[in-house]
Amino acid sequence: MASFVHAGKKIVAIGRNFAKHAKELGNAVPEKPMFFLKPTSSYVQQPGAIEVPEGTTVHHELELGVVIGKTGRNIPQSAANSFISGYVLALDMTARNLQDEAKKKGHPWTVAKGFDTFTPVGDFIPPSKIKDYNNLQLTLKVDGKVTQDGSTSEMIFRIPKLISFVSSVMRLEEGDVILTGTPEGVGPVVPGQIVEGTLADGTTKEPISSFRFPVVGRPAFDSDQ
Amino acid sequence: MASFVHAGKKIVAIGRNFAKHAKELGNAVPEKPMFFLKPTSSYVQQPGAIEVPEGTTVHHELELGVVIGKTGRNIPQSAANSFISGYVLALDMTARNLQDEAKKKGHPWTVAKGFDTFTPVGDFIPPSKIKDYNNLQLTLKVDGKVTQDGSTSEMIFRIPKLISFVSSVMRLEEGDVILTGTPEGVGPVVPGQIVEGTLADGTTKEPISSFRFPVVGRPAFDSDQ
Ligand SMILES: [Mg+2]
Ligand SMILES: [Mg+2]
Ligand SMILES: [Mg+2]
Repeated sequence: MASFVHAGKKIVAIGRNFAKHAKELGNAVPEKPMFFLKPTSSYVQQPGAIEVPEGTTVHHELELGVVIGKTGRNIPQSAANSFISGYVLALDMTARNLQDEAKKKGHPWTVAKGFDTFTPVGDFIPPSKIKDYNNLQLTLKVDGKVTQDGSTSEMIFRIPKLISFVSSVMRLEEGDVILTGTPEGVGPVVPGQIVEGTLADGTTKEPISSFRFPVVGRPAFDSDQ
Repeated sequence: MASFVHAGKKIVAIGRNFAKHAKELGNAVPEKPMFFLKPTSSYVQQPGAIEVPEGTTVHHELELGVVIGKTGRNIPQSAANSFISGYVLALDMTARNLQDEAKKKGHPWTVAKGFDTFTPVGDFIPPSKIKDYNNLQLTLKVDGKVTQDGSTSEMIFRIPKLISFVSSVMRLEEGDVILTGTPEGVGPVVPGQIVEGTLADGTTKEPISSFRFPVVGRPAFDSDQ
């Protein structure tokens, strides 16, 4: 499902799946996976740019994406791997000020997570390129400085549990992507900066995938057109 | 875009767009449109059934859906009608107990709104069948008893404003559907019941579209497979 960006229908993003990240935002570590939807209209690929709407504080969250290969519902953990068609390195860009406000009011997170260009992705990664999805290093640099550097070994809920849990609520379909959560070190980006992400083998440190996105500005949303 | 159920990518659902409905749930009337996403995997068409997962209290919310016909971003209200390819009568089924809990905790609404079969829809309605989208009657019966009976004339934010606002955050694409909010009278349905919806012209009372869905049970989600 290398064409997930154009053919996929949903992006399911897991929140608070790394204990240190949950803590850095002052959140409790969840007892069950927590997830939300991002629209596929938020995908952006190189050589595109990440847009920061005026009036928002936009954070980077570097995540491993799992690309679903076939339809499944109530998938048992033991069968989960057979529903994976590949992977993708992704950013779950988040308008943190809007998310904080939404959380306080009990409102949906949709706007905070759903702006155009809020899901930058690298190339599709076939399963053959990943030896162990529980041993991958996620590294993010902003203007050359490392801000996030975590291992998928730190995930609270592993990929089979995520696939099983999500599919017990909503059917997963070919081209759907599950973003598996971000390690600690999230922080703001502003227009003019460059964001670079790398996914590497946790043991050999061999890079598997990488991307580079410039950050640009965008006018405020809802300017009462 | 009569094939929106299979080809569409997102369902954007507006919350609290009818003042009496906002009040019946104890919510403030919003100053701006509030919206969330439902997955397209939640569509169900006749002769399907609405599934109520064990442990959830599932409410019906009868809504007018607007089917988008072409891609647009930052759509001005004055151009909004040209992005409409048609309409659909829909239910925004909601696991109210899960939504209440999510609101209290500041969590996403995704699970509460996103179960399979939580967006029952009728047939695609071409624009020629709707004289004035601000003058339509939405009527819902549960087991033959009317529970919701409201007019689209009561919408706080009208369709052009909704299209403009949503598209200032996220690009709208062919086959996307905007659910425009529900009038007062939402309430629970349980397995064994029959839900019938009708959309009618507000002046002539002529029916434009209708559907009928049985309600069935489904095991609890996340039964730790
Ligand atoms: Mg994230
Ligand atoms: Mg979607
Ligand atoms: Mg609704």
